[in-house]
Amino acid sequence: MSVITVERKILEKNDEIAGENRALFARHGVFVINMVSSPGAGKTSILERSLERLKGELKVAVIEGDVQTDLDAQRVARYGVPAVQIVTRGGCHLEANLVRDALEQIDLATIRILIIENVGNLVCPSNYDLGEACKIVVASTTEGDDKPLKYPSMFRNASVMIINKIDLVPYLDCNVQTLKQNALSINPALTFFLTSCRTGEGIAEWCEWLKAKADSLPS
Amino acid sequence: MSVITVERKILEKNDEIAGENRALFARHGVFVINMVSSPGAGKTSILERSLERLKGELKVAVIEGDVQTDLDAQRVARYGVPAVQIVTRGGCHLEANLVRDALEQIDLATIRILIIENVGNLVCPSNYDLGEACKIVVASTTEGDDKPLKYPSMFRNASVMIINKIDLVPYLDCNVQTLKQNALSINPALTFFLTSCRTGEGIAEWCEWLKAKADSLPS
Repeated sequence: MSVITVERKILEKNDEIAGENRALFARHGVFVINMVSSPGAGKTSILERSLERLKGELKVAVIEGDVQTDLDAQRVARYGVPAVQIVTRGGCHLEANLVRDALEQIDLATIRILIIENVGNLVCPSNYDLGEACKIVVASTTEGDDKPLKYPSMFRNASVMIINKIDLVPYLDCNVQTLKQNALSINPALTFFLTSCRTGEGIAEWCEWLKAKADSLPS
Repeated sequence: MSVITVERKILEKNDEIAGENRALFARHGVFVINMVSSPGAGKTSILERSLERLKGELKVAVIEGDVQTDLDAQRVARYGVPAVQIVTRGGCHLEANLVRDALEQIDLATIRILIIENVGNLVCPSNYDLGEACKIVVASTTEGDDKPLKYPSMFRNASVMIINKIDLVPYLDCNVQTLKQNALSINPALTFFLTSCRTGEGIAEWCEWLKAKADSLPS
């Protein structure tokens, strides 16, 4: 019982800080997304393709969450955007206070979009609000079409589902239509993008969505 | 601070029950593995191919862990083996007491191998001993070759690493040699198997290893 109480207190405290983060983002007119997925679904690759595409159009900053390394921040920094790495040292998800601390290194007045890449984990990050405008769940076609049913909380809490590695479908037993239907049975409001970071398919559409969201905010 | 204390108590209690489970498995001469991986790496598919192969040779039972569904136990039950599903209802890993409860439905006297398939999560299950002889980490080639560096705890705590979906390598940027080297830099004692559930590659070698381990136990 004490565990549940502690857990609830952690979540309440997290939600409070997430609310403060959200208010801060609103004051600066920054559109913030929280990218979540299994390990290796392609969050960082989508981010790289998106940064290439958005270059010169819209100022972006990135916060990278990782259990142990700063490999992802290194990859992202090559694109000339501010990139802050949070290393959780074994922690399985980002929390709002970690994002708040990382924000000390980002000048929100100079950016329009902040992309937070969470730890690769389809379970734990779903419960932790970071102050984002929305969660973007990336599902790789290689993971099969049943994942929304098996990890429903993440798909329920996301606004957008990016179905990545679409170029590999001919070599897999994954039915993209079934994957979409399974996701919609959990969350009928989901918006879908089908992408491949190898061929570039779908990246333009995804970036258009991102730009439209950022443009809709008062700056 | 109070959180850390509670966490330590949970782990201590878990380890105590895991020890009891391990003693029970030893009394019955049952070889027990704890299969861990990202969601969609292919744990259940490897299990299915292994059950096909071991049929008539060795009695196997399966405990399936899942956040929400019993889809995996349904898949496994088709092979005519005892299969118990643990649904964690949002929980991100199996714990020793859940396995102990599931054991009430399995007659250990009649089996030689127990395969526990954990929740798809490359972070949290690494800290929870279930009483297994060893952890088997499954990494899919589609996840890229950097995962051992990014999720070191799981690869450090595993005895065997199955590199699955090896048939997809021609279509990926994953270098299997780099993947192995990264894993060995974290855990030099790892034993590797390269498998494909589509072509059947590597399944025979993996099953031979499993049988040899079970045969080495006093029954």
